[in-house]
Amino acid sequence: MTKRIVISDPTLRDGNHAVRHQITQENFAAYCAAADRAGVPIVEVGHGNGLGASSMLVGECLLSDETILRTARENLTRSKMAIHAIPGFCTIQRHLTMAVELGVDVIRVASHCTEADITQRHIDFARKSGKEVYGVLMMSHMATPEVLADEARKMEAYGAEALVIMDSAGSYLPAEVTRRISTLVDSLGIPVGFHAHNNLGMGVANSVAAVEAGATIIDGSARGFGAGAGNAQLEVLVAVFKQMGWETGIDLYKMLDAADLAEAQMVKSMPYISSTSIVSGMSGVFSGFIKQVNRIGAEHGIDPRDIFFELGRRNAVAGQESLILEVALQLKSARAVAGDIHG
Amino acid sequence: MTKRIVISDPTLRDGNHAVRHQITQENFAAYCAAADRAGVPIVEVGHGNGLGASSMLVGECLLSDETILRTARENLTRSKMAIHAIPGFCTIQRHLTMAVELGVDVIRVASHCTEADITQRHIDFARKSGKEVYGVLMMSHMATPEVLADEARKMEAYGAEALVIMDSAGSYLPAEVTRRISTLVDSLGIPVGFHAHNNLGMGVANSVAAVEAGATIIDGSARGFGAGAGNAQLEVLVAVFKQMGWETGIDLYKMLDAADLAEAQMVKSMPYISSTSIVSGMSGVFSGFIKQVNRIGAEHGIDPRDIFFELGRRNAVAGQESLILEVALQLKSARAVAGDIHG
Repeated sequence: MTKRIVISDPTLRDGNHAVRHQITQENFAAYCAAADRAGVPIVEVGHGNGLGASSMLVGECLLSDETILRTARENLTRSKMAIHAIPGFCTIQRHLTMAVELGVDVIRVASHCTEADITQRHIDFARKSGKEVYGVLMMSHMATPEVLADEARKMEAYGAEALVIMDSAGSYLPAEVTRRISTLVDSLGIPVGFHAHNNLGMGVANSVAAVEAGATIIDGSARGFGAGAGNAQLEVLVAVFKQMGWETGIDLYKMLDAADLAEAQMVKSMPYISSTSIVSGMSGVFSGFIKQVNRIGAEHGIDPRDIFFELGRRNAVAGQESLILEVALQLKSARAVAGDIHG
Repeated sequence: MTKRIVISDPTLRDGNHAVRHQITQENFAAYCAAADRAGVPIVEVGHGNGLGASSMLVGECLLSDETILRTARENLTRSKMAIHAIPGFCTIQRHLTMAVELGVDVIRVASHCTEADITQRHIDFARKSGKEVYGVLMMSHMATPEVLADEARKMEAYGAEALVIMDSAGSYLPAEVTRRISTLVDSLGIPVGFHAHNNLGMGVANSVAAVEAGATIIDGSARGFGAGAGNAQLEVLVAVFKQMGWETGIDLYKMLDAADLAEAQMVKSMPYISSTSIVSGMSGVFSGFIKQVNRIGAEHGIDPRDIFFELGRRNAVAGQESLILEVALQLKSARAVAGDIHG
């Protein structure tokens, strides 16, 4: 039996992270039209952190949510239009209501991997609006397969029609993906999906492992355009899945054309695996910490990589930037003590 | 038992392909010193096609072989110095003799995957010079595992002390690597190695598959610096192998430093997976054909990607550029016939 995979394309959402949310209206229109021609089933659009996230703190988006949704809607005929909705950024009253009015097809309601509880009202609203609803668990490497399954079951109970786990720090190796996806497939009655980041060069291989373990929804971005080291490269996924004999329904040549267009018009610098990306992946710490880690490391003479690994041991998540200084100071004082002993 | 992997680093050889063989003496010196500090076991240097390959036809090297070898030798204290030697480019009398005099440690004698015969005299000479000798089979995806094993056994019989297969077009998926490496490990009494290219995003995953199948020598380049889509990214291999619990003897932080240095000083544009790289990987055709394929495709109104796939079906290899026009003309006439029938 041929495996059929639903590709969901976050180029115009995760890619916004790579350009400080400055993707232009022309870019949105052109890439949506190209992805639509290629037959990409789902195109996700918006600020990097999803609907309602544009702000001084996490980055102001060049375009309003409304402009993005209208532009995408006008240029998607066959492809479904999706949004990323994190309760806290995205309100029901203002943002979800608008998205429904502007013709969104798929609402992906997302939370940190252990906080599915906060998604209940959003999932419920989205279902009642007659839209397709996915539950999304971010930073999923921070939970065991069993905890992930518990959280996922909550989302299913709230009404989610599919469940996607994100490898937000790009820290999985294939065996860990297999373990988590298998557990989810066994635990849920809804389709399971996977969203990769490429910090350890495993974006494509982890996506293949996910499919082999039973995932049927895979996220991928043109040229890997996304936060940090980027996502699984969409046109490579299409090629590899074709070689594996799996069906995506996407036209290979038109997908390559769409990726060429993204490269020429939108991707300012190609995502690649920097040393920081590697340390982020190994430590499981969100790479968005890097600027502050570098600054505080330099101020206190501590190797930023040591800070990253220690943050990883403490399970630091976005929002806990105050931990960086605490960790740096402790590493410094530990070194001073070691210096006293040995020197 | 902990797996111990010998990393061989072709940054300063395969990387030369990425900059039309223009790596400078300063780059050679600085990167050799950095790799040496990191404890990289083997550092390969030279023109992209190895010793003696500098020419108008395949590209003139900025530096002479002698300058490269002297510079590398001065900057490698712990790391072994290696060269790539393809009989035809590299002569025994002139090039191998010089390399031996200038202190090469590892001579990697390479041929197309079905032409091991041509390596006998070189391997024999290198062994008699008291040097470590690897046999290398290029474009290995063009031979079945059984044919590869036959060719590899020849190299072993000639005196090769290790056998490396190259995925020159970056066309393997992990299962194919597993199949070939397992067959080689079962067929040979010498260590087996793998050299990846990243056309299908599998450079790191294929290297992991090779180790799991019994390979103990893995090639990787800093930042993936190498021909086309690049090689397996060396510092990512070091990180991933560490996560897998495998021993490389390489210091992670110093390797990240070496890669940062390569990025800052030598890598003009980061390798990435272009649409051409993907088609090259899928079709199994060397990406060096691309310029002529694009030109001839444009002249005759044939999609270059169709030409690539047809070249793949005909097992085209470097040197057979005349096939490109033949294929284009046949595709054109086939289309004309189809046009007559349908239109």
